[in-house]
Amino acid sequence: DTKLKIFSLNSNESLAREIAEEVGLPLGKISVNRFSDGEVQINIEESIRGCDVFIIQSTSSPVNENLMELLIMVDAVKRASARTVNVVLPYYGYARQDRKARAREPITAKLVANLLETAGATRAIVLDLHAPQIQGFFDILIDHLIAVPILSDYFLEKNIDPSDIVIVSPDHGGVTRARKMADRLKAPIAIIDKRRPRPNVAEVMNIVGNVDGKICILIDDIIDTAGTITIAANALVESGAKEVYACCTHPVLSGPAIERIDNSVIKELVITNSIELPAEKSSPKILQLSVAHLLAEAIVRVFEEKSVSTLFD
Amino acid sequence: DTKLKIFSLNSNESLAREIAEEVGLPLGKISVNRFSDGEVQINIEESIRGCDVFIIQSTSSPVNENLMELLIMVDAVKRASARTVNVVLPYYGYARQDRKARAREPITAKLVANLLETAGATRAIVLDLHAPQIQGFFDILIDHLIAVPILSDYFLEKNIDPSDIVIVSPDHGGVTRARKMADRLKAPIAIIDKRRPRPNVAEVMNIVGNVDGKICILIDDIIDTAGTITIAANALVESGAKEVYACCTHPVLSGPAIERIDNSVIKELVITNSIELPAEKSSPKILQLSVAHLLAEAIVRVFEEKSVSTLFD
Ligand SMILES: Nc1ncnc2c1ncn2[C@@H]1O[C@H](COP(=O)(O)O)[C@@H](O)[C@H]1O
Ligand SMILES: Nc1ncnc2c1ncn2[C@@H]1O[C@H](COP(=O)(O)O)[C@@H](O)[C@H]1O
Repeated sequence: DTKLKIFSLNSNESLAREIAEEVGLPLGKISVNRFSDGEVQINIEESIRGCDVFIIQSTSSPVNENLMELLIMVDAVKRASARTVNVVLPYYGYARQDRKARAREPITAKLVANLLETAGATRAIVLDLHAPQIQGFFDILIDHLIAVPILSDYFLEKNIDPSDIVIVSPDHGGVTRARKMADRLKAPIAIIDKRRPRPNVAEVMNIVGNVDGKICILIDDIIDTAGTITIAANALVESGAKEVYACCTHPVLSGPAIERIDNSVIKELVITNSIELPAEKSSPKILQLSVAHLLAEAIVRVFEEKSVSTLFD
Repeated sequence: DTKLKIFSLNSNESLAREIAEEVGLPLGKISVNRFSDGEVQINIEESIRGCDVFIIQSTSSPVNENLMELLIMVDAVKRASARTVNVVLPYYGYARQDRKARAREPITAKLVANLLETAGATRAIVLDLHAPQIQGFFDILIDHLIAVPILSDYFLEKNIDPSDIVIVSPDHGGVTRARKMADRLKAPIAIIDKRRPRPNVAEVMNIVGNVDGKICILIDDIIDTAGTITIAANALVESGAKEVYACCTHPVLSGPAIERIDNSVIKELVITNSIELPAEKSSPKILQLSVAHLLAEAIVRVFEEKSVSTLFD
């Protein structure tokens, strides 16, 4: 009978440790370092022959370092005669480069999928891809988990009267996600409807749906520089919202994000630990929920060759 | 008739500019930046439809940044309907990870070859691979140039009596390279013969060949931390060498390299510009020769579908 082995690389060791604990296994022994010139040096320090290996790595910042670590690890695992090489990406970097928005652009989200397959990955487990179509970039099996239930449960536990709540999508692309959360909270939705009346004219912010006197919960997949979300929060307050919460799966939080959130009308920002936050990105407004249980469950089901689909929503 | 286009990424723009000048073309218009979260953002700012595109990038430090830039650029060029996508790697990073020296190691040099092909490279031009076998890691055409003639010519111009010179390989792996240089300088060779008599006993340094009273020229492909080369130089002086020069193609020069060279018995270190040296890696002992002419010649011959093989030695 085959053995399950879970390895962590450098991007998100605390989440990996939590996942291993949930599964009830120690993390596999490995050292992931750099040679003097910066090249990745990986030593797998235990036998994995015939094993089902799961490698946990978010391709968050520094994205190129983390991605190369993952590709090199996949190569090493494959060459060490593992039975299957499963990559677990709590955060899938480069997901926003998923189409040619302009001429002569790369489609890096597709490139990354191809690179993982070329290195030798036999299956991928991912969480809240920026666009669900990215699943189709893979020829190997891919399991696409969503964090909406985890984020929703947190707000459910606040026991707010559902008729006081509105779930808000900060743009058109996120309406399906907002709808899923609204179903769980039995609340209506609203949409921030930005549009540019003519080229080179400022955007007009219109709110579709009633938020007057309501507790608004903004939901997005990624919060990066936090421009969109803080502007959306202002628009909600200007339209009469009583309180504004925000939540997202992936706290990229680059550049001015923390400052913007701290200075915003947002009362609380709820995120997951798909990306490990460095100490300098802490804020009293931010609450981090764990996706360890969800990912552990997916890993065990894949290992036991059971369906993962009930974890999808 | 197709057009030749040369693009530079961020690792070695000064060499790329020199190459383009030698070819007699401006560099292609491009911007290579980072999004706020550190992801690579590439915009090719001119049409390359139907063109033969040459992308110049050394995968030197920061190797993972430079490699990902190259892969993403290859993807963008391919999707912009270029006729051929030629990658020019004056320095091929990860070349030393070219075999499993221990159990469960990756073979990253092979992985990189596969990644370049997967991204869409149709041909590669490289210079002094750490092991010539790496050519066989590619299924696409690869042209392997060597810098020995450039390094040799520099020493020939010193007009030293060939009978006073010995070309020295710092290890067994580099003897073929030393032999090639010796042929050009009409000088004999010597080899630094390190061996460990028993495990956990200090290495013994033995010199095969006569260096007493001679001007020694150490030659290597890569000088990284400069440990090997400075120890070799000491051994040569202890064996009676009158003067010690050193040369290499790829000045990786990481960690304590510059300090070691400055404090060594090496009179002059001759390198090429396959890797761009940052200002903090300068030393009065270092002389940098250009490989621009060699690479420009190779690019033009590939473009004109002429043989590159006379550039090989
Ligand atoms: N890392 C990134 N940071 C900011 N914008 C990005 C990033 N990657 C891609 N984009 C841009 O974001 C847009 C896609 O975002 P979206 O419309 O939300 O799917 C594309 O036009 C991309 O050029
Ligand atoms: N970037 C690097 N820096 C230092 N050593 C390396 C690097 N990459 C690989 N190696 C090691 O260098 C050895 C190969 O060097 P060589 O014997 O000169 O071909 C292998 O044992 C590798 O583990």
